[in-house]
Amino acid sequence: MESAQTGEAALIRLIERTVSSRGQVKLGIGDDACVLKDGTVITTDAYAEGVHFDSDYMTFRQIGTRCACAAISDVVAMGAAPQVVLVALAMAGKMHNVQVRALYHGIEDVCSELSCEVGGGDIILADKLLLALTVTGKAKQPKLRSRARAGDHLYVTGHLGSAEAGRLALKHSLSRRHYSRLVQRHLKPLPRLAVVKKLFRKIRGLIDTSDGLATDAHHLAQESKVRIVLEPESFPILPQTLELCALLRTDPLHFALCSGEDYELLFTSIDLIPKNVKGIPVTRIGQVEAGAGLYLKRQGRTTKVRTHGYDHLCTT
Amino acid sequence: MESAQTGEAALIRLIERTVSSRGQVKLGIGDDACVLKDGTVITTDAYAEGVHFDSDYMTFRQIGTRCACAAISDVVAMGAAPQVVLVALAMAGKMHNVQVRALYHGIEDVCSELSCEVGGGDIILADKLLLALTVTGKAKQPKLRSRARAGDHLYVTGHLGSAEAGRLALKHSLSRRHYSRLVQRHLKPLPRLAVVKKLFRKIRGLIDTSDGLATDAHHLAQESKVRIVLEPESFPILPQTLELCALLRTDPLHFALCSGEDYELLFTSIDLIPKNVKGIPVTRIGQVEAGAGLYLKRQGRTTKVRTHGYDHLCTT
Repeated sequence: MESAQTGEAALIRLIERTVSSRGQVKLGIGDDACVLKDGTVITTDAYAEGVHFDSDYMTFRQIGTRCACAAISDVVAMGAAPQVVLVALAMAGKMHNVQVRALYHGIEDVCSELSCEVGGGDIILADKLLLALTVTGKAKQPKLRSRARAGDHLYVTGHLGSAEAGRLALKHSLSRRHYSRLVQRHLKPLPRLAVVKKLFRKIRGLIDTSDGLATDAHHLAQESKVRIVLEPESFPILPQTLELCALLRTDPLHFALCSGEDYELLFTSIDLIPKNVKGIPVTRIGQVEAGAGLYLKRQGRTTKVRTHGYDHLCTT
Repeated sequence: MESAQTGEAALIRLIERTVSSRGQVKLGIGDDACVLKDGTVITTDAYAEGVHFDSDYMTFRQIGTRCACAAISDVVAMGAAPQVVLVALAMAGKMHNVQVRALYHGIEDVCSELSCEVGGGDIILADKLLLALTVTGKAKQPKLRSRARAGDHLYVTGHLGSAEAGRLALKHSLSRRHYSRLVQRHLKPLPRLAVVKKLFRKIRGLIDTSDGLATDAHHLAQESKVRIVLEPESFPILPQTLELCALLRTDPLHFALCSGEDYELLFTSIDLIPKNVKGIPVTRIGQVEAGAGLYLKRQGRTTKVRTHGYDHLCTT
């Protein structure tokens, strides 16, 4: 594949050079979502069978739920309350209407929990199931990746690596019951809207953990022009995730740093945040300092984390 | 295909029954686009290789242009000025970055002419090229399909069937030069934003001709609860389209009624509209009356047009 060689970042830069601003967008390409001049936050995300979900072990309702959570997460990660979801569905020819309906049911389940709604969409025929979800939202003042400041604490909601551990449990047909918390986070990574609302004034830099902690913390550091030091000894990881890492002979630290699609909030604040906000665990996992780059501090020793290039940490 | 049997309309009704309103949307599923409670008009449309465009005789730049025109048309058909285009791109593995850039160039060409801009998007890998474009816009007062009233005249911009005739000319490798006006309308069906702006106060019911005159006029009649009588003797059809119909042994009236994707404005007004608005031909092609259904009036005789069911007019 030609484009993989040049990489997604290069492709985005290429696109940025191709398109022009005409004063409609306050904040464009580069953050989790785009902010229009009237304050509307908007994002679009595409999901494909075999890449973002697997109908071998997911029902169509679960596919709808998971994709809706992922898409809405981008709006929540801008500090906005979601309003409307538009669904562009490329329907595999073999799909029955009842499956299409199940897919919409899954999207509706999430909308119902987050007080937003499906506002329309488009359906076309295709070889494989593919979804593109657009989500709009409103924020008084959008929260950005670029607002972390030296002196801030770094926090994450929920538990690191749970969604990926859940996916692996499903993929390897492990006990759904034993790994139910992980499986649940994979199937329904509900965006932490309640936490965003409760902590709105305290949150400075904000991103969601869609690409994995290392990559997303790196984005925060880069966009805010600060140095972020992660403290792995305080990483919130569920015992079942550690167990699964042992089973699959995977280093749990590497797993916590590199597993994507948790859709947790990764944010910075100058304040000390309670360990539980609206029933969701919030954990301090590091520190923002003057400088640049992403670092790990273990047993007093600080080492640089490489998230790009040939010898970068997360190779998946 | 199971769903084709039940049809798109049934599928939309099924979806409408599945999702719930939560006060975010002022006007939802059913019109060209959805209107949010703050007046934002928003639409999403999906386009697939082999269905909506053909890379055998279209460059990637032309594909971008055509899809952008089609998507933006839905916002213009609500009487709104487009603001932002979001691009969800499922990129065929074999695509080069230069082709992706060409595609964005094509979208940018349209945005530049209509003073809107690309605000972001998403890129994933897929087997085939697939685009989902979301467009937002603003209208003081959205124009709806449901606002045609008995006594209105029915108007259409441009020429009927030009885009489909252009597609056929390309498909059959006919002279691009001879059929250039048609080919141009297929490749770049630029939404008639200037006409919408100029006639804003005079337009009542409004839709774009994406499915073909018969189907779209039927939508107008149905949503407005009126009877629409088309007058084929006044249909604006280019001589090259008539020529192509003769060549392909197609009835030109049927062709004008059933050819989709012209993306012209089909609107009603109580006023008499000039034949040329901002350089675009505007033609009176019928009358709105009390009653229901779609009719054709030829040589004084009025006959009903069936647009649905087994014996409906347009079978494609």
